Amino acid sequence: MNKIKVGVLGATGSVGQKFIQLLENHPWFEVTEVAASSRSAGKKYKEAVNWFLNTPIPEKIKDIIVKEAKPDLDCKIVFSGLDASVAGPIEEEFAKNGYIVVSNSRNHRFDEDVPLLVPEINAEHLELIKTQKYGDGFIVTNPNCSTIGMVMALKPLYDNFGIEAVSVVTMQALSGAGYPGVSSLDIIDNVVPFIKSEEEKMQSEPLKILGEYKNGKIEFADIKISASCNRVPVVDGHLESVSVKLKKQATEEEIIKAWQNFKGIPQELDLPSAPKQPVHYFFENNFPQPRIHRNLENGMAVSVGRLRKCPVLDYKFMVLSHNTVRGAAGIAILNAELLYKKGYIK
Amino acid sequence: MNKIKVGVLGATGSVGQKFIQLLENHPWFEVTEVAASSRSAGKKYKEAVNWFLNTPIPEKIKDIIVKEAKPDLDCKIVFSGLDASVAGPIEEEFAKNGYIVVSNSRNHRFDEDVPLLVPEINAEHLELIKTQKYGDGFIVTNPNCSTIGMVMALKPLYDNFGIEAVSVVTMQALSGAGYPGVSSLDIIDNVVPFIKSEEEKMQSEPLKILGEYKNGKIEFADIKISASCNRVPVVDGHLESVSVKLKKQATEEEIIKAWQNFKGIPQELDLPSAPKQPVHYFFENNFPQPRIHRNLENGMAVSVGRLRKCPVLDYKFMVLSHNTVRGAAGIAILNAELLYKKGYIK
Amino acid sequence: MNKIKVGVLGATGSVGQKFIQLLENHPWFEVTEVAASSRSAGKKYKEAVNWFLNTPIPEKIKDIIVKEAKPDLDCKIVFSGLDASVAGPIEEEFAKNGYIVVSNSRNHRFDEDVPLLVPEINAEHLELIKTQKYGDGFIVTNPNCSTIGMVMALKPLYDNFGIEAVSVVTMQALSGAGYPGVSSLDIIDNVVPFIKSEEEKMQSEPLKILGEYKNGKIEFADIKISASCNRVPVVDGHLESVSVKLKKQATEEEIIKAWQNFKGIPQELDLPSAPKQPVHYFFENNFPQPRIHRNLENGMAVSVGRLRKCPVLDYKFMVLSHNTVRGAAGIAILNAELLYKKGYIK
Amino acid sequence: MNKIKVGVLGATGSVGQKFIQLLENHPWFEVTEVAASSRSAGKKYKEAVNWFLNTPIPEKIKDIIVKEAKPDLDCKIVFSGLDASVAGPIEEEFAKNGYIVVSNSRNHRFDEDVPLLVPEINAEHLELIKTQKYGDGFIVTNPNCSTIGMVMALKPLYDNFGIEAVSVVTMQALSGAGYPGVSSLDIIDNVVPFIKSEEEKMQSEPLKILGEYKNGKIEFADIKISASCNRVPVVDGHLESVSVKLKKQATEEEIIKAWQNFKGIPQELDLPSAPKQPVHYFFENNFPQPRIHRNLENGMAVSVGRLRKCPVLDYKFMVLSHNTVRGAAGIAILNAELLYKKGYIK
Repeated sequence: MNKIKVGVLGATGSVGQKFIQLLENHPWFEVTEVAASSRSAGKKYKEAVNWFLNTPIPEKIKDIIVKEAKPDLDCKIVFSGLDASVAGPIEEEFAKNGYIVVSNSRNHRFDEDVPLLVPEINAEHLELIKTQKYGDGFIVTNPNCSTIGMVMALKPLYDNFGIEAVSVVTMQALSGAGYPGVSSLDIIDNVVPFIKSEEEKMQSEPLKILGEYKNGKIEFADIKISASCNRVPVVDGHLESVSVKLKKQATEEEIIKAWQNFKGIPQELDLPSAPKQPVHYFFENNFPQPRIHRNLENGMAVSVGRLRKCPVLDYKFMVLSHNTVRGAAGIAILNAELLYKKGYIK
Repeated sequence: MNKIKVGVLGATGSVGQKFIQLLENHPWFEVTEVAASSRSAGKKYKEAVNWFLNTPIPEKIKDIIVKEAKPDLDCKIVFSGLDASVAGPIEEEFAKNGYIVVSNSRNHRFDEDVPLLVPEINAEHLELIKTQKYGDGFIVTNPNCSTIGMVMALKPLYDNFGIEAVSVVTMQALSGAGYPGVSSLDIIDNVVPFIKSEEEKMQSEPLKILGEYKNGKIEFADIKISASCNRVPVVDGHLESVSVKLKKQATEEEIIKAWQNFKGIPQELDLPSAPKQPVHYFFENNFPQPRIHRNLENGMAVSVGRLRKCPVLDYKFMVLSHNTVRGAAGIAILNAELLYKKGYIK
Repeated sequence: MNKIKVGVLGATGSVGQKFIQLLENHPWFEVTEVAASSRSAGKKYKEAVNWFLNTPIPEKIKDIIVKEAKPDLDCKIVFSGLDASVAGPIEEEFAKNGYIVVSNSRNHRFDEDVPLLVPEINAEHLELIKTQKYGDGFIVTNPNCSTIGMVMALKPLYDNFGIEAVSVVTMQALSGAGYPGVSSLDIIDNVVPFIKSEEEKMQSEPLKILGEYKNGKIEFADIKISASCNRVPVVDGHLESVSVKLKKQATEEEIIKAWQNFKGIPQELDLPSAPKQPVHYFFENNFPQPRIHRNLENGMAVSVGRLRKCPVLDYKFMVLSHNTVRGAAGIAILNAELLYKKGYIK
Repeated sequence: MNKIKVGVLGATGSVGQKFIQLLENHPWFEVTEVAASSRSAGKKYKEAVNWFLNTPIPEKIKDIIVKEAKPDLDCKIVFSGLDASVAGPIEEEFAKNGYIVVSNSRNHRFDEDVPLLVPEINAEHLELIKTQKYGDGFIVTNPNCSTIGMVMALKPLYDNFGIEAVSVVTMQALSGAGYPGVSSLDIIDNVVPFIKSEEEKMQSEPLKILGEYKNGKIEFADIKISASCNRVPVVDGHLESVSVKLKKQATEEEIIKAWQNFKGIPQELDLPSAPKQPVHYFFENNFPQPRIHRNLENGMAVSVGRLRKCPVLDYKFMVLSHNTVRGAAGIAILNAELLYKKGYIK
């Protein structure tokens, strides 16, 4: 099989590096283009990037010349890890020029005709693509890194018992802030109880993700969500303390079973990046933990633990997911795999 | 003035060291005895202790011979930083022998006749002492380190607006686990979402602390509390994300004013360890932070910030307090100061 | 092929866990026995261990019953991760009873008839085994974790240019101290400039390792070594700053070439755990770094960088190696692979 | 007494903040001006600065309007914490206009007529000021933060026994890199074995500092120095492992005595910022440590420990000093105090 050519926009950034790392040896996709700001354009990738991942830069990518993020790249798909300050119009430009834009940026997440996609949860939202007006190209987005872990854990409860309210407090990893991101002087021996715009995202994105596709539109879910977001001195892996108020009564056993039985389209289709089991429940009383569980199933599985009664709402539990894999580059690649398998990529 | 002789039980432990550090140069109290397990007894303090605080061992204490924790110490007050596995009967023994026991241990916190004291909040609970049956001696306790910060922030709201429910998620410092406590291998680049018995304490202790003294008894407050406790890689300072449901409507301004105006008996009496302002409200959007604010007013003030609407309950905010000062040794000393000023120590 | 049965002594400890992790799916060896102290004996492994690695306990091992470390185990080889306080006589007992003891403990490293083995460096020292008096069984040891990285970098220089003196300062990872090991309160925002007995090991072990096998004995190398050992807040990976005085002049290019060309018997024999390239030289001016390079070639390669003139000796450079893989469990397994391939295991 | 008006150049930076913190309540000096880049000029200080120290911004400074670093400030002395990329000509400009420039920047350290001053070591180098050609104004500099701790420990050995060679490996704190400085992603669970230009500074600055003032010039000391510099995840406090080759034989007792007896002009003159004892020797085998000892004598004392024989040179030991106090802002203030007491400030 000839692999599909893909480009990475924002290739020198934190998410961009992860795209390049995860796409090495991908069975269907091959990185042929890397694009970044004009500052980097014209340099070899290895010279433009401050690579900080713990595997080497893939040999094939090292010497590729970085281009500007303009729609003259030799590829079919572009994965966008662009900064939100510039992503909006650039992504539109690519779509208008026939590219398939699979974006991790927030700019188009709430466009009426753009899917906010988590393949295990709302693959049917892909129908929205038909309503886009970009011609052959189109845009698909994935949620914010802190939303994804939570919504993966909520989906089985939402389907089985209904959800009225969610209260979540996050302890988020440093890689979520990009590179250089958080200064070491701000976070060693410290916690920062604020992440710009993060609480707003967590309170709004799940409503679209869990919404229903109906008559060419998404009807948003009706859930009250309160989020409080904190940055902790952890490299990778967002840990979240979640309390939920359910619509129907449920026992602990039923809830755990709902998580354990949860499968989605990626598992049915056996997509290359799909975890065998999207949600793992741990019975140990001190699990999940970022350093121990973030790489579960190559960072694509979500870890849940400590289910117990909540004296204020109904139940509380902990969720962990790898913020740059399941929460960013990994899910975007899974989105592209779904698009391919569903015939959206010709 | 002749200083009052005090002893420290559990003097080599984490809280014990803090007692000794904070009592150096105290205007009313003088450490004359240090007691610990039989393993340490007979050694000089400097040889028995693995001192890890960032000021030297006080000169007067260095060469004191450590004794066993038995009621034959030459002092009037004993500050107890004993481990809960042994504190119960030892503290009783001291009380029976006429000592005033000011304890940081949990064993007697829920004894019907023992005050669970936070001097700014419930100084009137001292009345309970009269109902104790230890003769001249008696026992006074302070709450758990994670409870204290929260309850200091809740008290002004409770008095002004009433509280129906509280949901709190903690990010707790390592010194709260004692020494050696948490292994570095468990916490570097990690968060541990579990602290033994901590959630139970946070869900129960505030009910007694905020309770009303009536007819020789405490009538517990009626508040639903849900706590989720986490250990983070921070040396000192418990940070807590709190959501509250109030009984009466309140504006943000009214709430902030309630905190800023909050004073208690220790401020009225100008006790040596009392902070000028027990609760500081910070308007910066990323405050309070453990490393920056834990030492506010010598670690005895509580820092609050980020007050905002909670879509599930009514309001949410962050609280920070120094867990071994305001949350342990410092509050116990403040308790003793209150006892002295109120005439309980002859 | 029927796999060779192996047991792990000290199986619940830090190095013991690493043995079990690394031996999962080993092509030649199969863990059939796990042994630990009498406290753990009789329990299932998963209940006896405080597993803290970031891959799950292997399925086959979870329910194995832990035994005491006595020579009645059903296996041919025992890998010893026993604490030095008990390892000495236990390992002898096993050898006397016909077991092949591949030990990471220090107790027998300087026995005249026991190889202190780094397969890339001194495979010929295996000849010593013939002089052991344990009957069918015998003992083979590997060096201390801080010695191994350094000696791998020194060997090519020793062979090509001769070495007169070495001055080394280490920055060592927490996992080197075992579990629970270093208290988090001692190391967050801190460095501890002392590791018990470590400097002595680093100053003596290289002399035997680089020594020459002659007439049934090892003639120790004649090098002056000064070591200064520090513990830093890093989970895995010992980083070392090394200065050397050479016997012959050498250019930077020659030295780098010596490292790049360095191969040993494990590479010739293509042993399963052998890195393709034992020493990697990095030209980036801020490499090697523990988090980025410790897992190079599955943690079995050593990373070197920053070669430059030393104004006091001749040259200085940085070395990094994974202390529990190349520095402990991984090298022990490589030692056993060499023994097997060389016919020492029937 | 009317306090002397001082300005802080680079007032929003890491060292600038420390100047402002340390000068609050100074008995002789009063901050009347704060200057920074044109980006900050015109704003109130509290709005221009990202204050990250753990005491609040001094009340008197909060609302001062930041000015540009031009010689029209209302003050007599300027403390310069300017970035080296701009400090050179700006400092000259101030000197030419009659200001006394007390600088922490490296630009003029090696000017022939500029003292590189450590008051305990080379107060007589102040004579150089007479040879400056700036009119009433002049420039005085202090060494790099990593040099200062080492040279304080070397001076007593240099005077008593002579020094031929020094080999030093540093483990340097994050605050030394300024703010935001080192990205958290680069240093959590990591060490970075490189700091730009640092080794060059450590190898050259001590030669001038320990040099002799003769005939209007400094004759540099003749010592071979090799430095290897590393960044570790520590907030404040540079720890250094030092080996020395002495000219005369000395016993451990003699060396320790040399440190303990070491005093300088600042102690004689009882300058406000002078530590009572410039060098403290610790006999504990795991001291000094950054978190425990960096604040010794308000961060102005240097801690030394672990003196022992070096098998390659003569002796080795550990040195610790607070890099932004003794190593930057604190020493600059001490320099200004010396200037004042010696009559250089009219």
